[in-house]
Amino acid sequence: MIDLRSDTVTKPSEKMRKAMYEAEVGDDVYGEDPTVNKLEELAAHILGKEDALFVTSGTQGNQIAGLVHCNPGQEVIMEAEAHIFLYEAAALSAFAGVQIKTLDGVNGAMEPSDVEAAIRGDDIHQPETGLICIENTHNKAGGAVVPLENMELIYHLSKKQGIPVHLDGARLFNAAVASQTLVKEFAKYTDSVQFCLSKGLGAPVGSMIAGSSDFISQARKWRKRLGGGLRQVGVLAAPGIIALEENVTLLEKDHENAKRLAEGFQNIDGLDVRNKVETNIILVDITKSNKTTERFIDQLKESTILAGSFGPNIIRFVTNNGITKEDIDQVLITVQKILNN
Amino acid sequence: MIDLRSDTVTKPSEKMRKAMYEAEVGDDVYGEDPTVNKLEELAAHILGKEDALFVTSGTQGNQIAGLVHCNPGQEVIMEAEAHIFLYEAAALSAFAGVQIKTLDGVNGAMEPSDVEAAIRGDDIHQPETGLICIENTHNKAGGAVVPLENMELIYHLSKKQGIPVHLDGARLFNAAVASQTLVKEFAKYTDSVQFCLSKGLGAPVGSMIAGSSDFISQARKWRKRLGGGLRQVGVLAAPGIIALEENVTLLEKDHENAKRLAEGFQNIDGLDVRNKVETNIILVDITKSNKTTERFIDQLKESTILAGSFGPNIIRFVTNNGITKEDIDQVLITVQKILNN
Amino acid sequence: MIDLRSDTVTKPSEKMRKAMYEAEVGDDVYGEDPTVNKLEELAAHILGKEDALFVTSGTQGNQIAGLVHCNPGQEVIMEAEAHIFLYEAAALSAFAGVQIKTLDGVNGAMEPSDVEAAIRGDDIHQPETGLICIENTHNKAGGAVVPLENMELIYHLSKKQGIPVHLDGARLFNAAVASQTLVKEFAKYTDSVQFCLSKGLGAPVGSMIAGSSDFISQARKWRKRLGGGLRQVGVLAAPGIIALEENVTLLEKDHENAKRLAEGFQNIDGLDVRNKVETNIILVDITKSNKTTERFIDQLKESTILAGSFGPNIIRFVTNNGITKEDIDQVLITVQKILNN
Amino acid sequence: MIDLRSDTVTKPSEKMRKAMYEAEVGDDVYGEDPTVNKLEELAAHILGKEDALFVTSGTQGNQIAGLVHCNPGQEVIMEAEAHIFLYEAAALSAFAGVQIKTLDGVNGAMEPSDVEAAIRGDDIHQPETGLICIENTHNKAGGAVVPLENMELIYHLSKKQGIPVHLDGARLFNAAVASQTLVKEFAKYTDSVQFCLSKGLGAPVGSMIAGSSDFISQARKWRKRLGGGLRQVGVLAAPGIIALEENVTLLEKDHENAKRLAEGFQNIDGLDVRNKVETNIILVDITKSNKTTERFIDQLKESTILAGSFGPNIIRFVTNNGITKEDIDQVLITVQKILNN
Repeated sequence: MIDLRSDTVTKPSEKMRKAMYEAEVGDDVYGEDPTVNKLEELAAHILGKEDALFVTSGTQGNQIAGLVHCNPGQEVIMEAEAHIFLYEAAALSAFAGVQIKTLDGVNGAMEPSDVEAAIRGDDIHQPETGLICIENTHNKAGGAVVPLENMELIYHLSKKQGIPVHLDGARLFNAAVASQTLVKEFAKYTDSVQFCLSKGLGAPVGSMIAGSSDFISQARKWRKRLGGGLRQVGVLAAPGIIALEENVTLLEKDHENAKRLAEGFQNIDGLDVRNKVETNIILVDITKSNKTTERFIDQLKESTILAGSFGPNIIRFVTNNGITKEDIDQVLITVQKILNN
Repeated sequence: MIDLRSDTVTKPSEKMRKAMYEAEVGDDVYGEDPTVNKLEELAAHILGKEDALFVTSGTQGNQIAGLVHCNPGQEVIMEAEAHIFLYEAAALSAFAGVQIKTLDGVNGAMEPSDVEAAIRGDDIHQPETGLICIENTHNKAGGAVVPLENMELIYHLSKKQGIPVHLDGARLFNAAVASQTLVKEFAKYTDSVQFCLSKGLGAPVGSMIAGSSDFISQARKWRKRLGGGLRQVGVLAAPGIIALEENVTLLEKDHENAKRLAEGFQNIDGLDVRNKVETNIILVDITKSNKTTERFIDQLKESTILAGSFGPNIIRFVTNNGITKEDIDQVLITVQKILNN
Repeated sequence: MIDLRSDTVTKPSEKMRKAMYEAEVGDDVYGEDPTVNKLEELAAHILGKEDALFVTSGTQGNQIAGLVHCNPGQEVIMEAEAHIFLYEAAALSAFAGVQIKTLDGVNGAMEPSDVEAAIRGDDIHQPETGLICIENTHNKAGGAVVPLENMELIYHLSKKQGIPVHLDGARLFNAAVASQTLVKEFAKYTDSVQFCLSKGLGAPVGSMIAGSSDFISQARKWRKRLGGGLRQVGVLAAPGIIALEENVTLLEKDHENAKRLAEGFQNIDGLDVRNKVETNIILVDITKSNKTTERFIDQLKESTILAGSFGPNIIRFVTNNGITKEDIDQVLITVQKILNN
Repeated sequence: MIDLRSDTVTKPSEKMRKAMYEAEVGDDVYGEDPTVNKLEELAAHILGKEDALFVTSGTQGNQIAGLVHCNPGQEVIMEAEAHIFLYEAAALSAFAGVQIKTLDGVNGAMEPSDVEAAIRGDDIHQPETGLICIENTHNKAGGAVVPLENMELIYHLSKKQGIPVHLDGARLFNAAVASQTLVKEFAKYTDSVQFCLSKGLGAPVGSMIAGSSDFISQARKWRKRLGGGLRQVGVLAAPGIIALEENVTLLEKDHENAKRLAEGFQNIDGLDVRNKVETNIILVDITKSNKTTERFIDQLKESTILAGSFGPNIIRFVTNNGITKEDIDQVLITVQKILNN
């Protein structure tokens, strides 16, 4: 199978498996797992934050950020197609009791002036704005990189009003690699960051959140409430360390493969690539093919290629570290065949 | 003072005061207040619903609807400038734990196809759509009447998916009078309705919610939790009965006054009326006047006229039963003077 | 009917009705109702607090206190039979997201050392103690007065740990009258207080909460979310002012009537008065009468006397300002007759 | 170190590490991880339930049970020293919005008649009883086994009232081994069960919940909201399978060691064993030793023995699969020495 449904499907490498096998562990609820402690220090260092915390998923990291930063009855600003809004099953409203105010962005980036205008005033009818969330890269916008300057502007205006900024950086390393910018440059314009070890970076399970010591201290308690306080978690931290130390550079190949695939698609009649492919996601509009997305996806599957529906007429392809250049060429040939039939 | 800030400023009439004075009362927590029982029967009858319940405000009625219809982690669809979303301090997310998905409407009405497209699918990443809310008349759209046909279409598509529909009818009687339609015609396309006794209808305090017997039975308990279970509430129900029995027809005069005011404004240089004035709300854009809304409102106040800011450059005027035709003419003269200076 | 079910059944006096009729009113959401403003100042003054707020019920006042003082995931300490725990339909957990830790008290008073021992430590497994609630008089303990010294001790130990104290003083004026102590003496050992205008004080609807200016400012917003922000609420505030200015001294008569009733019951075979009757509540154990509470209550009702069940074999009688000394004697004669049959 | 603080400190065996290394994995959010699927089938089978789900901790499993079974504003009955009440940081109230009603049990078991009496009636002031929780073995009662008959009685009375029963069986296998009863016998008297793979059973991370297919289907979504939806989770499921298939019988040795330790403690002046040691937990009262628990624990630590404080004057020792008979004898000698000094 050539699995292009997501970069979450990546399987742990031999080296990661070996690291799990050998991991020195302890009871992390007592703070005694040396491997997770090492991972948390490493993540904090890379992001330029005081402290970091292992969480079991990006969703858990984002939820914790909301729970720490906000009080119930507040409002959180984010882009209209943010993962938190679309794909976290309304957990932020269910758990943190906050309302989400969405803004239409361009390529996943909110206009700073829109953010400023959306901040609520001091009025008994209005919720206080409690948090601003940015997603980088932006999944639904096709892995678009939210420019550093955009983040800087939003951060500065939010600071003026005392509102914290959280970065849903599930694919932050893709943004960093694509823009040749250090992740800590992006993290500079945030109060808290979440990024995934388990997507392009290839670890089997887990994400990290980072922020001030005080933020992480509160985050640790909310993680416990959410059931994310684990025991000998070093077995997951060990591949996480490899993900951070060795796999970041591999993302470049994913991006090249994505561009190769996008260019190939552009030359095929019946397909329109809808996003500027900056990282590892390609959104293809198949309207002109006169096929339904279900049919198209089924035909791909019959040819051992997996991709996913991403809204009406849109199919999403995500390159990842299980995909080679040869796979890309194979996909292009197959798609051409499907459309010729 | 000519108070055009809102129709909430209406003061109880002599007749209402007398009704309060004479009201037969009992302990409504025991279900023994005859006057509130009468009001609830009357409201249920007028709306064509099985049962109705007195609540202390429109906000309380809307919150109860969310609490009864939804479970935490669900999503509620409503128009982007709905009162519940803008002006209820995020209470629905705080108390019912639901996420709000907003849709841009036209004159306060959501496109049925947009509603249909916004209903979530059966996917572990997505909240279930738990409720659809309609606001009629739509405050922020300038008291616009959401057409009966629009409500009918939305109701039918929601029923197909088993999703309840709630009507925030704070000013439902304005919609009914303006469109010469019975309120029960609007209520037909809903599972629950809230309307206010205290706005154009002139009662000092209170709103009603109506729905099935089962809905009202659950609503009664949530009202208790919210602290809306009152004792000798007949003193509020008595003017509420008058509001329903005698004041509905008075709304016509409010609408005429609003139109007279709007026409007058249209003839004044520097002002643009932004809404088609169907009921009792006029939204005036003062951009061309080269005044700030604060300055404009202050100058009106110096001339004993009260109005309110309603977003950048917009001033809202709301006619109500304390306003006469002569007041309208007075306002027009004053505004002209202010702009001449 | 001689209605001894509760002091909530009191009906507004002629003077209160007249006050409603004549009340000067305004839109309280704009802060413009002069009568409610007067009531709030009066209540703050009597309680010795910076500010006060009208709320529609004792439940609403208690909920607001929890919402202002606590964050979700905290724990609130209160007596095991506190009204908030038994009779507010779990609203505090539903809305404020807090866990309630109950302590068995004696006559409604928690042992200060028990309170101290119940305060949670700094541990990731434990909720922070966010609030301590006291109920005075204590309903379920039969209107028992929680001694001032008890409140003082609990207040001082809570202050040492930075934990706020809320007083559910639904019947605080009964405690004050019974112990010949000013309410402000009790209020001194609290951060917030709620008391009811609608019980023994005879107003038709409403309660007050009081505390610091900052507490009331936040309380006002939570009241809005709960739907307790009203319009021309002066019509309810007017009888509330009379309740405070004129009806406090009437409570003495209620207490005398209660004692007369309790003494009479003690002399009747088959009845045991279970509480030391300090205020207006009598709890009678009818086990020895060989009747069920349902049967007993029904027989009373046939003789135009109303009382309520209050747990297995216990009937509660509450004197109130609709009850005369003659009513008490009538009740005693009737009860004797019922038991003779 | 002889670590007797908890059975959570157990480290994965060589065999478990090998299983992780070799685990066949897939993306479990897509349901494609064969190893976790196998573990879930195995757990369901052993418990006699339709379906089961891997969760990251016992806390997460318990939270999910509350979120699936209850609605906000309901009440949950459990023993006064239940783990959910004492040690899950009030998460059940924070997330599920429920109030907890505790009952004092005997050796961790609630009296069925107390449970029956605690179920709330149909009254607007009262929360509905939404769930009954049992903890077996009961941690705070010293690993006490709640008798099967007790669970049966509680289950039958709860079923009569339509109330679900959840079993916090973090150490259910200890109860089963100690009472020579199959876990499915205990599970029979529940609607949902949670048990830990990571305590006595020795897996590094994880717990299982089991129940009807419908329960698990809803649980899966709440797990996603809590951030417990993982990717290549087979790496954790693999040791979990070994825990279930091979480590259950090892618990017998833990129980023998615990009894040996308890008997030894009983023969030491200054110590009182407070619990009947049925499984792997010993609670020792050191009041007569005239030492503080802090001092005692420190002295143990200096001699390379770890134990934990468990309330005033109580030290808890938990045997686990890292502890040998020789370790027990070593502990007894050391404790004797500490007390002789």
